Amino acid sequence: MSEIHADKIAPSSITIAGWVRTRRGSKKFSFLEINDGSSAKSLQVIVDASISNYSEIERLTTGCSVKIQGNLVLSPGKGQKYEMQATEVSVFGLADPETFPLQKKEMTLEYLRENAHMRVRTSTYSSIFRIRSRVSFAIHRFFVERGFSYVHTPILTTADGEGAGESFKVTNFDMAKVPKTKQGQVDFEQDFFAEPSMLCVTGQLEGELLTMGLNKIYTFGPTFRAENSNTSRHLAEFWMVEPEVAFANLEDNMYLAQDMIRYVVADVLENCSDDIDVCVQKTQNDTRGYLKMALENPFIRVSYTEAIDILKKSGQNFENPLFWGCDLKSEHERYLCEVHFKSPTIVYDYPEEQKAFYMYLNDDGKTVRAMDVLMPGIGEVVGGSQREDRENILIERMKAKGIDASHMDWYVSLRRYGSIPHAGFGLGLERLIMWITGMGNIRDVIPFPRTPGNCKY
Amino acid sequence: MSEIHADKIAPSSITIAGWVRTRRGSKKFSFLEINDGSSAKSLQVIVDASISNYSEIERLTTGCSVKIQGNLVLSPGKGQKYEMQATEVSVFGLADPETFPLQKKEMTLEYLRENAHMRVRTSTYSSIFRIRSRVSFAIHRFFVERGFSYVHTPILTTADGEGAGESFKVTNFDMAKVPKTKQGQVDFEQDFFAEPSMLCVTGQLEGELLTMGLNKIYTFGPTFRAENSNTSRHLAEFWMVEPEVAFANLEDNMYLAQDMIRYVVADVLENCSDDIDVCVQKTQNDTRGYLKMALENPFIRVSYTEAIDILKKSGQNFENPLFWGCDLKSEHERYLCEVHFKSPTIVYDYPEEQKAFYMYLNDDGKTVRAMDVLMPGIGEVVGGSQREDRENILIERMKAKGIDASHMDWYVSLRRYGSIPHAGFGLGLERLIMWITGMGNIRDVIPFPRTPGNCKY
Repeated sequence: MSEIHADKIAPSSITIAGWVRTRRGSKKFSFLEINDGSSAKSLQVIVDASISNYSEIERLTTGCSVKIQGNLVLSPGKGQKYEMQATEVSVFGLADPETFPLQKKEMTLEYLRENAHMRVRTSTYSSIFRIRSRVSFAIHRFFVERGFSYVHTPILTTADGEGAGESFKVTNFDMAKVPKTKQGQVDFEQDFFAEPSMLCVTGQLEGELLTMGLNKIYTFGPTFRAENSNTSRHLAEFWMVEPEVAFANLEDNMYLAQDMIRYVVADVLENCSDDIDVCVQKTQNDTRGYLKMALENPFIRVSYTEAIDILKKSGQNFENPLFWGCDLKSEHERYLCEVHFKSPTIVYDYPEEQKAFYMYLNDDGKTVRAMDVLMPGIGEVVGGSQREDRENILIERMKAKGIDASHMDWYVSLRRYGSIPHAGFGLGLERLIMWITGMGNIRDVIPFPRTPGNCKY
Repeated sequence: MSEIHADKIAPSSITIAGWVRTRRGSKKFSFLEINDGSSAKSLQVIVDASISNYSEIERLTTGCSVKIQGNLVLSPGKGQKYEMQATEVSVFGLADPETFPLQKKEMTLEYLRENAHMRVRTSTYSSIFRIRSRVSFAIHRFFVERGFSYVHTPILTTADGEGAGESFKVTNFDMAKVPKTKQGQVDFEQDFFAEPSMLCVTGQLEGELLTMGLNKIYTFGPTFRAENSNTSRHLAEFWMVEPEVAFANLEDNMYLAQDMIRYVVADVLENCSDDIDVCVQKTQNDTRGYLKMALENPFIRVSYTEAIDILKKSGQNFENPLFWGCDLKSEHERYLCEVHFKSPTIVYDYPEEQKAFYMYLNDDGKTVRAMDVLMPGIGEVVGGSQREDRENILIERMKAKGIDASHMDWYVSLRRYGSIPHAGFGLGLERLIMWITGMGNIRDVIPFPRTPGNCKY
């Protein structure tokens, strides 16, 4: 807990406030394990029965909140360097063990997910969310130190991000009586924005726009997909980080992604070591091994075409078909980085058909300057590209993919006026945190997961 | 521009890339003013007619993008310390002056607002958005340095934040055929979340929940209001910062708000001085005077009751009625901080009837432990309170305000199990940036403003 740095220890009395994790003891004294939420470490407090309200102390159970005055002393026991001898204990609030959802005994993640309003009080989840906070701050610091501007791209939008990914609709209509035109169509003129509006699926396109005035930008914000996929890797609401760099090409982009991931890993290892230990103990995953691999190994770079060759020659029986032009599936990606290279791996120059319209078309006419960053332990965490900055080619590719360029003229016009080479990528924050914490279900790395049928709180 | 730090100047050639702000010159040479978006300062580049593609240079207009090699030398001219003598200029993209929306001459903010996809390329807006970025980072750093965890409260929610503020509805229904039950009601069972869902109006309630496991938290995210108010101070989508502190009371809250504002102001003055100059030149507001006032003056604290007395005795003719129990309007707030105290001012202990159900009820039974922070130059930028941590009183106040406590039992239950004193506040990011930049219209401090009828890009 934040109060117990060794250099703050003085013989005088200190005061702490927190929640009881456990109490054990006798009629002569009680041991309280107190945690205040600021770190993974709890403080052991010894309360002597001579204290005036000892009968109240004897009734303390897991989850009660207290304020304690006392002296911090070197602990004779094992497992902690210091402990506290209480001189005064006052109780803020009780937690009736008959109804309080959290028990002293080990609880399953499924049970805790169903009690999401309480799970942050457990050791596992408070550690995960402290790591999430630190990862977020490290990302901000990484970009700001490199001269990036943090920008807020719109959440409400009429621009359909990629032509991929289903969007949630946003409206101010009374859903019981949606107004119609005389022709029987929905009369969006009467809606708040006077046209159909939705939640963003990416901030990239607006980010590209801002790059033209700010040079290097990044977004850090929520993103939404209305896809009915109830898996351990999908959320309807998740957070994305999307940097975009003026005058950059795909190679610059690879360095940026690699540097960012390494910066975050080093920062978290330095600042959240106790919290990572809590996660490792819970998951029994080799999280630290994977993190070390990212810090020590150069990120391997391999073209999609080379990757297909490697996979074909691997002798593995993959479930999914393998041919030039196929989507690389999770099994392929993990074979590449975990088995073949044993290193973070960047696959680049993907077939044009697979990828979005805004990616730079290579001279071969069949691949685009796209990249995916694959991490041992989780697979893809970053996807990016150099952007198509030639207006005519951009329009051709939009047509070929059935996207109405006239509806997105603001975007196309970025290539009409002072067009520049530029590149960027998207990082799924939850994917990164799953990898760093070793948690296997994405619902456990965001405080309030939104999935089909689940929007509580 | 980031390339021109004095310590990097060497006799060897340097390369820059950016956009032409202006070009003037003759058949013998051209002066190009190049800006790369990384700072308010542009670089003057002299291109001699002896360069092989000089005819191309002569056709360069505002907005063209170029890459230039050359030597950085001390400038003999006024207005800049260094200038560049070009040895090679290559053009990335032109910007046909017949159609390019940005002109060399001064453009109105209204015109630029209508060309929001281009305005970031102007000096004023790139400065505003760099300040916005720096303010955001300073806020993150302030809280992280003080041991706060950055948390992501949900954007999609079924919890109606305050019972105040209209929410946008979110749905996956085809609006043309909203499914109905046999009884003719909207069949929300068939919607994505199987119940009516909406966009958050605050993250506070979920933030309080997370405080119980993380001690000190803050949110930094988008917030939404579906209110049909077309003013210079309202947005349908805006960003909020909401810290919440365990074991804190209203006084702690006042210090936190004051420290945060001062930290941000000092940081921005240090890191964005050129950008603030650009804003001051545009608005002619005494922005620096107001910022200095916040740094130098202690924030005055005055109870609502005292404030009403001061206003009554002021002899001012206010437009709005003045009596104990009235809402303090902008004219009252600005009189208090700008005329009477000439200082940032915190008004606290507001009438219970005016304020939200979750604010701590004082012993007088008629006021609550609420506070508003008023800044000279803009008025209220922060509103907060100590939270009601007594379950019975919370339930009573919910009833009195017509809020269904059973629907929000997860929130009430925070007081049932290990309840603690806690306090927090909300900061409207755009309000703060309006104050720091001196801009008078909130649509000018966010890249893509969302207002009734406006959701472009």
